[in-house]
Amino acid sequence: MTAYFTEEGSVDAVNARMGSDINPRLAEIMTCLVRHLHAFAKEIQLTQEEWEIGIDFLTRTGQICSGERQEFILLSDTLGFSMLVDAINNRRPQGATENTVFGPFHVVGAPVRQMGDTISLDGKGESCLFEGRVIDLDGNPIAGARIDVWSDNDEGYYDVQQPDIQPKWNNRGIFVTGADGWYSFIGIKPVSYPIPDDGPVGQMLGHLGRHPYRPAHTHYMVTAEGYQKLVTHTFVGEDPYLTSDTVFGVKQSLVAPFERVDDGATIWRSQFDFVLVKKDSAGTR
Amino acid sequence: MTAYFTEEGSVDAVNARMGSDINPRLAEIMTCLVRHLHAFAKEIQLTQEEWEIGIDFLTRTGQICSGERQEFILLSDTLGFSMLVDAINNRRPQGATENTVFGPFHVVGAPVRQMGDTISLDGKGESCLFEGRVIDLDGNPIAGARIDVWSDNDEGYYDVQQPDIQPKWNNRGIFVTGADGWYSFIGIKPVSYPIPDDGPVGQMLGHLGRHPYRPAHTHYMVTAEGYQKLVTHTFVGEDPYLTSDTVFGVKQSLVAPFERVDDGATIWRSQFDFVLVKKDSAGTR
Repeated sequence: MTAYFTEEGSVDAVNARMGSDINPRLAEIMTCLVRHLHAFAKEIQLTQEEWEIGIDFLTRTGQICSGERQEFILLSDTLGFSMLVDAINNRRPQGATENTVFGPFHVVGAPVRQMGDTISLDGKGESCLFEGRVIDLDGNPIAGARIDVWSDNDEGYYDVQQPDIQPKWNNRGIFVTGADGWYSFIGIKPVSYPIPDDGPVGQMLGHLGRHPYRPAHTHYMVTAEGYQKLVTHTFVGEDPYLTSDTVFGVKQSLVAPFERVDDGATIWRSQFDFVLVKKDSAGTR
Repeated sequence: MTAYFTEEGSVDAVNARMGSDINPRLAEIMTCLVRHLHAFAKEIQLTQEEWEIGIDFLTRTGQICSGERQEFILLSDTLGFSMLVDAINNRRPQGATENTVFGPFHVVGAPVRQMGDTISLDGKGESCLFEGRVIDLDGNPIAGARIDVWSDNDEGYYDVQQPDIQPKWNNRGIFVTGADGWYSFIGIKPVSYPIPDDGPVGQMLGHLGRHPYRPAHTHYMVTAEGYQKLVTHTFVGEDPYLTSDTVFGVKQSLVAPFERVDDGATIWRSQFDFVLVKKDSAGTR
């Protein structure tokens, strides 16, 4: 290896430059990143003009970011990278509820409600009874499990996207299970919506012949003492975007039944059990 | 392959989503990029926290970009990616002058000067006579070759980095060869300087145990009718950063002699021939 750069020795030229006294994990990550980035350019024989387009795209992606908008997360989401990182870090045994992407719309501090309460504070949308159990892998109920739920409204927006519209905490709430592990609350059957697509990522999706939609889903974060945190959604089965979620969040096991009941109380009923895994469980991390 | 995302099938899940009627080169590039990005995350078993650090880094890198600053180019440069793209696109036969990075400090429209003129308009720095020939691979002189030269001043800044300091076009000029292919002009022996290191890329270099310096160099863009454009530097041989250029721009063949002459006219003399390659030359692109 020479100290000078050559096309063949490009990876070694860069990686050999790292100091010996640096964070070993950072060294490992950057060495691997440089290897894969260079392999990409070599395999595709990237031209100067294509490189310039890439630099311009990354620059615009950074520049549109603000306190309310995170275009690099959108980019990661739409390239399946966020889901991959989620999958790598949340491998679970057969039978456990699977994770999916957290998304940018969770808010800490939603009101804790009583079982059976409604989170649909504006009364808009098709009402739905959500119920089921929080259980362990053996089917035993988990008491004291905290179910943090959030979903979009009937127009496809989360309350934080419409800060001027009251009431606050619409379609959000926290429910804590009792000894039977049972939960139930009234919300709405969620609707599909596009991710923000008026920026560089939306342009990219357009050039790739892809739509910006997410299939209808309800977000959950379920935590219980001694169990792994579960971050997931349930999806509405007949949604037209179910097999083309623009952020690749759908997993087969997360498609929930939505049964039309029209029982005077709600239009729909959706039953789903959350199966948690103990923190020290084998085969997981 | 399922329509749903799995850790094992992550690449296929994303790449199968591309439309069939899109730009074929874009499809090729993105398919390859997704494959390498996912391979990186899988190989390194990237954690959620590391992913968040990466998102934050990319966001800050974009946000510091402005009309005067291009942090993503710095990032590409310091990871050897710019040099790799340059190398892929400028393979030349043995004996031809090698390319190196263009850099961000070229300005279109520098004054055309007469052979022997000086480009050191402020008279600062150690004067140097630069001379040599523009020739083809057979050693024949190339007439009408246009040599666009630019370098930093004695403090390590290009004139565009100090817009308030006169005179304009200091250490820049264009020279056109006659029938003998000969060129000569007076400039200064360039000095080493750091790339802008007060942003995310500077922080990255710090964490990697790397310095931000480039070894002293003079920039050239040499063009002639019927020949491939040459974008290169010549480097000062004894520079302490010669084997650790932070953007990996040095090639052995571009290290030029700087001979101390002290002949009353200049302190130094640097002789270098530029060897151009015909546009239709085999083994090049």
